[in-house]
Amino acid sequence: MALITPCTPPGTMELLPRQQIVFQRMLDTIRRGFELYGFLPIETPVFEVADVLLSKSGGETEKQIYFVQSTGGLEQGHKPGLALRFDLTVPLARYVAEHEAELAFPFRRYQIQRVYRGERSQRGRYREFYQCDIDVIGKDALPLAFDAEIPAVIHTLFSELQVGPFRIHFNNRKVLQGLFESLGIDQPERRMAVLRQVDRLDKIGADGVRGLLMGGELALDGELADRILELLGIRGAADDTLERLGAMAGREGANPVFVQGVRELGEVVALLRAFQVPESHWSINLGIARGLDYYTGTVYETFLTEHPGMGSVCSGGRYDNLASQYTKSRLPGVGISIGLTRLFYVLSEAGLAPAGASTVQVLVTQFDPALLREYLALAAELRGRGVNTEIHLEPAKIARQFKYADRAGIPFAVVMGPDEMAEGVVTVKDLRTGAQERIPRGDLAGHFAKVR
Amino acid sequence: MALITPCTPPGTMELLPRQQIVFQRMLDTIRRGFELYGFLPIETPVFEVADVLLSKSGGETEKQIYFVQSTGGLEQGHKPGLALRFDLTVPLARYVAEHEAELAFPFRRYQIQRVYRGERSQRGRYREFYQCDIDVIGKDALPLAFDAEIPAVIHTLFSELQVGPFRIHFNNRKVLQGLFESLGIDQPERRMAVLRQVDRLDKIGADGVRGLLMGGELALDGELADRILELLGIRGAADDTLERLGAMAGREGANPVFVQGVRELGEVVALLRAFQVPESHWSINLGIARGLDYYTGTVYETFLTEHPGMGSVCSGGRYDNLASQYTKSRLPGVGISIGLTRLFYVLSEAGLAPAGASTVQVLVTQFDPALLREYLALAAELRGRGVNTEIHLEPAKIARQFKYADRAGIPFAVVMGPDEMAEGVVTVKDLRTGAQERIPRGDLAGHFAKVR
Repeated sequence: MALITPCTPPGTMELLPRQQIVFQRMLDTIRRGFELYGFLPIETPVFEVADVLLSKSGGETEKQIYFVQSTGGLEQGHKPGLALRFDLTVPLARYVAEHEAELAFPFRRYQIQRVYRGERSQRGRYREFYQCDIDVIGKDALPLAFDAEIPAVIHTLFSELQVGPFRIHFNNRKVLQGLFESLGIDQPERRMAVLRQVDRLDKIGADGVRGLLMGGELALDGELADRILELLGIRGAADDTLERLGAMAGREGANPVFVQGVRELGEVVALLRAFQVPESHWSINLGIARGLDYYTGTVYETFLTEHPGMGSVCSGGRYDNLASQYTKSRLPGVGISIGLTRLFYVLSEAGLAPAGASTVQVLVTQFDPALLREYLALAAELRGRGVNTEIHLEPAKIARQFKYADRAGIPFAVVMGPDEMAEGVVTVKDLRTGAQERIPRGDLAGHFAKVR
Repeated sequence: MALITPCTPPGTMELLPRQQIVFQRMLDTIRRGFELYGFLPIETPVFEVADVLLSKSGGETEKQIYFVQSTGGLEQGHKPGLALRFDLTVPLARYVAEHEAELAFPFRRYQIQRVYRGERSQRGRYREFYQCDIDVIGKDALPLAFDAEIPAVIHTLFSELQVGPFRIHFNNRKVLQGLFESLGIDQPERRMAVLRQVDRLDKIGADGVRGLLMGGELALDGELADRILELLGIRGAADDTLERLGAMAGREGANPVFVQGVRELGEVVALLRAFQVPESHWSINLGIARGLDYYTGTVYETFLTEHPGMGSVCSGGRYDNLASQYTKSRLPGVGISIGLTRLFYVLSEAGLAPAGASTVQVLVTQFDPALLREYLALAAELRGRGVNTEIHLEPAKIARQFKYADRAGIPFAVVMGPDEMAEGVVTVKDLRTGAQERIPRGDLAGHFAKVR
């Protein structure tokens, strides 16, 4: 039989065990952070009924869908009835609408699953990737305090992830929308187009944005562009920014949406302090707009200070109505998403996700095959105390067994030869330092249960 | 806009948060058990290149594949190039063959992911379900000690899962194969057909199997059928079974494969005792055959004693060569799989997976909206000590807040009104018992960090 070349599908990330362990620890840290803040887990199927999934998407997204079809359906030439989820927001909307009667609101859910996009294959872009999402969904209304809780979660999470210094930038879309309205940019589509250009400020700079606003289809007046860039130019300490915005909002005839946005920004800042999120880790950034059109209030992006080129590693915002395509209930919400596969890729490329210790804590070596039963008993004792233990069940020279443990990232090896057996001791070798220690056999499990 | 009815695709399991928490705890327990025994995590993409995935399957499986195709491919009328995995074994074979040079052997991996089968939709059968697999893959050879380690893992795991009494049944395919050879059933296909009938012993009884062996295409002689049923009739304590098998193996002219199988069974029994797996939890069961044709030695099934109708909840075995379709290396292995979605479904139906406590440990109530900042500070203290804490950020009557926590399965509520604030205390209410306790505010975080 001819051999088939084994290969992972293009655009997917597949890791060796030691990298998988690093990735898994990041997933665990994120989950722990979500649970610490009282978010509840849900999981949804990898595919959705195609018509249900695609009820609201359009444009770019629609071109990137993966459709799913069983053998039978394919043979009969049917149109595929299922499609892989492309984010966790549409499945959340479907879930909340479907189970509305059984859920308690505000509904705080976390969801950590893979999503699928048929993107053009290129380095660092994935067709399958993890999203780690939290959202709080209210019924009819959702207090602004939830908008301040989100950065508190981000702060806890990214501190625990140990990816270096980071800063949460946030804004309120009402501030931009109100400004645009006050400048006479009346059509919503036109305001969205302006928003999308503004969103590129951090990438292309003020002059770049000015050019985009005045050129192309927008063709804004130079004066209008200047007014917009004046707002975007407000940077610095939150209180200074709020003061300058407050002055603008206090002017006679100020746009009410603008005034509302400034008030919300101020409230979020006050609550953030009450949530004890250190001011070193957040800023108001009036240039954050988020391209997606469903955000209506607070919007967030998060940057690793030492890796600005990475872009935002955790983004989201407030929206007015989660599931208008499925239910008449008004379901406002606020949430964020972390694209962990890409974050892991970029950290790895930057050398910031090195393979660490194995999940295995101890290797019980097989010094003398005649003592195998003793080694099994040692391992059973260790496991009984919750110590992750591997037994070298294949006979091999002891040096080779040490080398195996070292390469696998296992920190400790336990050795017991006939002499040690007779003396009632075991030797524990720390493979990171090479140090050896003789320990009474009866104390071994306790020794490691402590080290853990 | 007309509303679209939100619905999960048929044949998938979607849980409400409190059930999801129970399910997640089972997943965590299984993972912890796998790691305790030194298995390393891997994950593979949900889809594989279709030609790579289907290189070895056939028959029933091939009819149940889900094919995947991007929008572009669909529009251009291409044949789908991807397919969803239908188990974790084929992806493991592909993974090991692809990364062979980078892996250390014996390669001990665990993998907990969902798999997909386009089965006819019916109650309790799922098209998307979790498999939790471990396998140890050797290069060229793999000592028999690994066959004894597998039941040790199952024993630890099912004890921790707390699903009631269970028993691991195991056998060695060589015993059956050797017997069939010695009875002159020479063609491998015919032996497999006999094996599949034998495998139904526990379901249809000895007479049923006898009928199947003598009827249909097999049409075995009555004497041959009796010889087979005589072997299957050997039940009871392991040592008795081994003694009777030993006597058969000791006869002059005994089939060498049979002799080898009996020797392996005996070794596994001896090692199982060395692994300290209590004899109350395992038996030799010569009727366990496992229908799949890749098993070549030890085979396992696990039954919940009080729910025999559930069938095996954890099965697997030893195979000679994992990845012959991808590599010339000989990769023998041994492994097991738990179909968790079905297990969870059956346990739920039997009332054995009740919704337990929430992941949220404490609800900080909002007794007085004017004190919101104090509540945020309380929650920050609790979270800082690792206590999963939700804040009732929506103002509501306190009775309603208690009711919310109770319904959500949150065990404790913290209340602080203006009086308590003035006294420097908080009230902790245990929602399971209704008991209340006043605690100095400074001791609160320590109090819960202890309770956890």
